Amino acid sequence: METKEIYLESLITGTPQEGRELAIKLARKSIAAIQPDSETRKKLRSDYAEDTAKLIASSQVIATEFQTIAMANNFWK
Amino acid sequence: METKEIYLESLITGTPQEGRELAIKLARKSIAAIQPDSETRKKLRSDYAEDTAKLIASSQVIATEFQTIAMANNFWK
Amino acid sequence: METKEIYLESLITGTPQEGRELAIKLARKSIAAIQPDSETRKKLRSDYAEDTAKLIASSQVIATEFQTIAMANNFWK
Amino acid sequence: METKEIYLESLITGTPQEGRELAIKLARKSIAAIQPDSETRKKLRSDYAEDTAKLIASSQVIATEFQTIAMANNFWK
Amino acid sequence: METKEIYLESLITGTPQEGRELAIKLARKSIAAIQPDSETRKKLRSDYAEDTAKLIASSQVIATEFQTIAMANNFWK
Amino acid sequence: METKEIYLESLITGTPQEGRELAIKLARKSIAAIQPDSETRKKLRSDYAEDTAKLIASSQVIATEFQTIAMANNFWK
Repeated sequence: METKEIYLESLITGTPQEGRELAIKLARKSIAAIQPDSETRKKLRSDYAEDTAKLIASSQVIATEFQTIAMANNFWK
Repeated sequence: METKEIYLESLITGTPQEGRELAIKLARKSIAAIQPDSETRKKLRSDYAEDTAKLIASSQVIATEFQTIAMANNFWK
Repeated sequence: METKEIYLESLITGTPQEGRELAIKLARKSIAAIQPDSETRKKLRSDYAEDTAKLIASSQVIATEFQTIAMANNFWK
Repeated sequence: METKEIYLESLITGTPQEGRELAIKLARKSIAAIQPDSETRKKLRSDYAEDTAKLIASSQVIATEFQTIAMANNFWK
Repeated sequence: METKEIYLESLITGTPQEGRELAIKLARKSIAAIQPDSETRKKLRSDYAEDTAKLIASSQVIATEFQTIAMANNFWK
Repeated sequence: METKEIYLESLITGTPQEGRELAIKLARKSIAAIQPDSETRKKLRSDYAEDTAKLIASSQVIATEFQTIAMANNFWK
């Protein structure tokens, strides 16, 4: 069931903005790991992109992933 | 789907208050990344601004983003 | 939409108890940032103060904010 | 609305077990800060003590508060 | 209402696996602290063990407790 | 009720990608610890893999577990 694709080479990014983008990517890859069928995911996507509660819950995942990435990059200081 | 706008130049802010404002901004930008259509977001906004459960869930996202920002700024000490 | 009021001068508090009070204040200010209309907030308040699930969710926000404040104060050691 | 009672003198406890008890106390005090009426809280209590989802959500609050307390005590090492 | 049983002598465990088991135990003890009646808990247990949303929420509590335990053990390095 | 299988020998992984896979494994093992019957889990699995809210909640668990693993590996730096 687990995807064999390598999607995380490193937690280090050049800029905080790239850190945000990596956080979003990691959140999406978790969804893909649990639901590997891309057709099903496409259908679900329209579902959560228009549902406020799910959008907020997704933002929480991104915030948590970003905290890890920010720590890894020593907050880009 | 991902916005190409640079919205996070740095996690460093001058004051804790600015840190709060950055946390709120990051929470909003996550919503925008998942739902890029601003018209749809506008409609959803009125939805969550008057729904207690969603307001609380949004506050949780802000709290998590703020923790990261506060760590980045060594808590403004 | 963002409040211009300065409500967070510092994360440093004299006592752990004051840290709790600051955590509660930050949680409330996040709600106010998303829903700036105080009349609407007043109506919503009675809603969540009598709904167990929302009370617990609010406690989670306070716990997260407090963790940040406690770290900022080196746990008042 | 905020309780003036001092319920948190210190985050330092003698044992991990006392740390758990403090975490539970803090979680309860957050509820009391938002819903100051003890009669209302008593009614709500029977509500969440028999509702699995609310019990689990309360456990999450306790876990977060405990993490803060454990860090404050350097994990009682 | 609080259980007087000592269930947490130490956060230190011999192995990561024992750390997982302690995390699960702590999550369960929180439930017991809020709902001290074991008969009621037994009934609720069958409820959440067959409800996906509650299983996932329980996993979240375990993940948080485990993070604390892992930090206490310096990640068993 | 607790599984006696050793599924966590170490938090140390060779790569960040392996850290993600371990995070997913830990999340799954928590479910298995609470619901030990594999037949029941199989039925529940199809349930959450097609339910957006549950997929997002699962991603949150993975994000939390991954943060712990990333800290254990000093972020693979």
